[in-house]
Amino acid sequence: MFSSHNKSGSKSDLIFAADLGGTHLRAAVVGRDGKIHYRLKQPTPQAEKPDGIVHALVDAAHEGARHTAARDGQISAVSIAVPGTVNFEDGVVVKAPNVPCLDGFRLAAALESELKWPATLENDANAAAAGEMWQGAGRGYSNIVCVTLGTGVGGGIILDGKLWRGVDGSAAEIGHLGVDPFGGVPCACGSRGCLEVYASATAIVRMTREARPRYPDSILHTSEDLTSETVYHAGLEGDELALEVFRRMGVYLGIGLASLINLLNPEIIVIGGGLSNGWELFEHHMHQQVIERAFPLPARSVKITRAECGDDAGFLGAARLAFAGQQAPTN
Amino acid sequence: MFSSHNKSGSKSDLIFAADLGGTHLRAAVVGRDGKIHYRLKQPTPQAEKPDGIVHALVDAAHEGARHTAARDGQISAVSIAVPGTVNFEDGVVVKAPNVPCLDGFRLAAALESELKWPATLENDANAAAAGEMWQGAGRGYSNIVCVTLGTGVGGGIILDGKLWRGVDGSAAEIGHLGVDPFGGVPCACGSRGCLEVYASATAIVRMTREARPRYPDSILHTSEDLTSETVYHAGLEGDELALEVFRRMGVYLGIGLASLINLLNPEIIVIGGGLSNGWELFEHHMHQQVIERAFPLPARSVKITRAECGDDAGFLGAARLAFAGQQAPTN
Repeated sequence: MFSSHNKSGSKSDLIFAADLGGTHLRAAVVGRDGKIHYRLKQPTPQAEKPDGIVHALVDAAHEGARHTAARDGQISAVSIAVPGTVNFEDGVVVKAPNVPCLDGFRLAAALESELKWPATLENDANAAAAGEMWQGAGRGYSNIVCVTLGTGVGGGIILDGKLWRGVDGSAAEIGHLGVDPFGGVPCACGSRGCLEVYASATAIVRMTREARPRYPDSILHTSEDLTSETVYHAGLEGDELALEVFRRMGVYLGIGLASLINLLNPEIIVIGGGLSNGWELFEHHMHQQVIERAFPLPARSVKITRAECGDDAGFLGAARLAFAGQQAPTN
Repeated sequence: MFSSHNKSGSKSDLIFAADLGGTHLRAAVVGRDGKIHYRLKQPTPQAEKPDGIVHALVDAAHEGARHTAARDGQISAVSIAVPGTVNFEDGVVVKAPNVPCLDGFRLAAALESELKWPATLENDANAAAAGEMWQGAGRGYSNIVCVTLGTGVGGGIILDGKLWRGVDGSAAEIGHLGVDPFGGVPCACGSRGCLEVYASATAIVRMTREARPRYPDSILHTSEDLTSETVYHAGLEGDELALEVFRRMGVYLGIGLASLINLLNPEIIVIGGGLSNGWELFEHHMHQQVIERAFPLPARSVKITRAECGDDAGFLGAARLAFAGQQAPTN
């Protein structure tokens, strides 16, 4: 055991880092230079107790170590991106709606006990922001807002090169900026009109279903399995329904970004997550709202760009945070 | 002249600090312990050239020095809170809509040249936040959002004890969070539905005029000179129109604060400015929106409270920033 979970990372040049999603566990053995020496992806165990998650992470870590030990050296720390609120200092999962068995669980301590490596936990969207700053679109910047458009909408805020986690570790919930507070679409968070109900993959599907009756000629009527990808591909083919849905999504995203820009005046906004693949369908509408709504000075200076690390952002950022924590274990 | 405007402040124990408003210039000679040794208030000169402002500030500084020199010691720095965007590093007013003659003006250098003291400039709402942290409701906190409800709505964000100014000095424009982006009320900033068009003194008057036809019995029909104060006093007497206007104002303010809380997860939100005097008329509605809309963890932990420094917040914060800049002039 180690006295402080956030001071993980020995002087080793390898970290076992994982991005624990609600659906998939993505993990890698990452070098100090950002090189990915080994990677794996597997379904997240549908565990009712934290043990199931811990064992999956430990098995993945052992597999990573086995594949890299001979050629690349020893792993000496573990770092996990978790889909929820994390107490970074204590290494505790506070609340993880998609992996509820971890709520309140001391995951860092459990991993340290099993692996004998110091462990770091971080919120997944924060980790993705750190990953993009290290190896992606945020390289060379130190004031970054990262927006992750996935099943939900997450965010990470980096100011002066440091993640801003807030006093409870729950900052940067960009998906829960109110962008249409009186508009009536309820959000899973309990509020209504949050960015997440307009700019997530889930929202794309919902908005497509809602608008379908107004577009009788849309090819999306025949689509059995409606996903944000099928809507995106229909949009590429010029389907009016799909284009309208991505237009709306871009408008709401731009409204949220304008508020963010007026509030934080960041250098760069990095947009990632699976839905960011629809970039060419929403980019114009998003930018237009930013120009119309944000103050001219910060709107002109901010760069708004696509993320570059894809699904690697989370574990890369987790690895970076562990390297940055660099202090020899205190016992 | 000094090599860096933001390193003003010698080891002296007295600062001449001023809060330059669109209407009034408030100034004081402030001690290192926050004691106000001398204060003055005068109309802001309606100058077409920066000289008029510079001379008013210089005269006020000389007056302050004359009144304090014998008993309290020497003033050795000047610090000004400006109603607009400021380049803190260079001591330049970037844009000040209510004192437009200062746009682009190197005010710090001009004051240094006249007074032979190092000079600091800061945005007025940022200065007010620093003042509340030093001598007001923010004492003992280091993660503070300060919202100033005046003619407009301003803001200051303090993270880890430091003002977050953004990369262009234009951060913390809390009045320009979109709280009803589709609601249609245009804002002077060019956007629509900003917090400022619902939660400023100007907005109280506008909303009262708009709603008056629906409240034929309101005492505000006979009010010649409709101001946010007359609406407030009518509300205290139970006037239904006034109560409805402050209810709306509280709802919009609460919506904005909920977004702020989800984004920044601060320790404390301090609400100041003249309109904050209406606290008992809007507090309940504001809190209700925060509870309904913000994430439970940060909403429970944040303290939302009234400012304590009143009109002194701006110059107190300006003084504090000059003391904090404490380095001997480099030439």
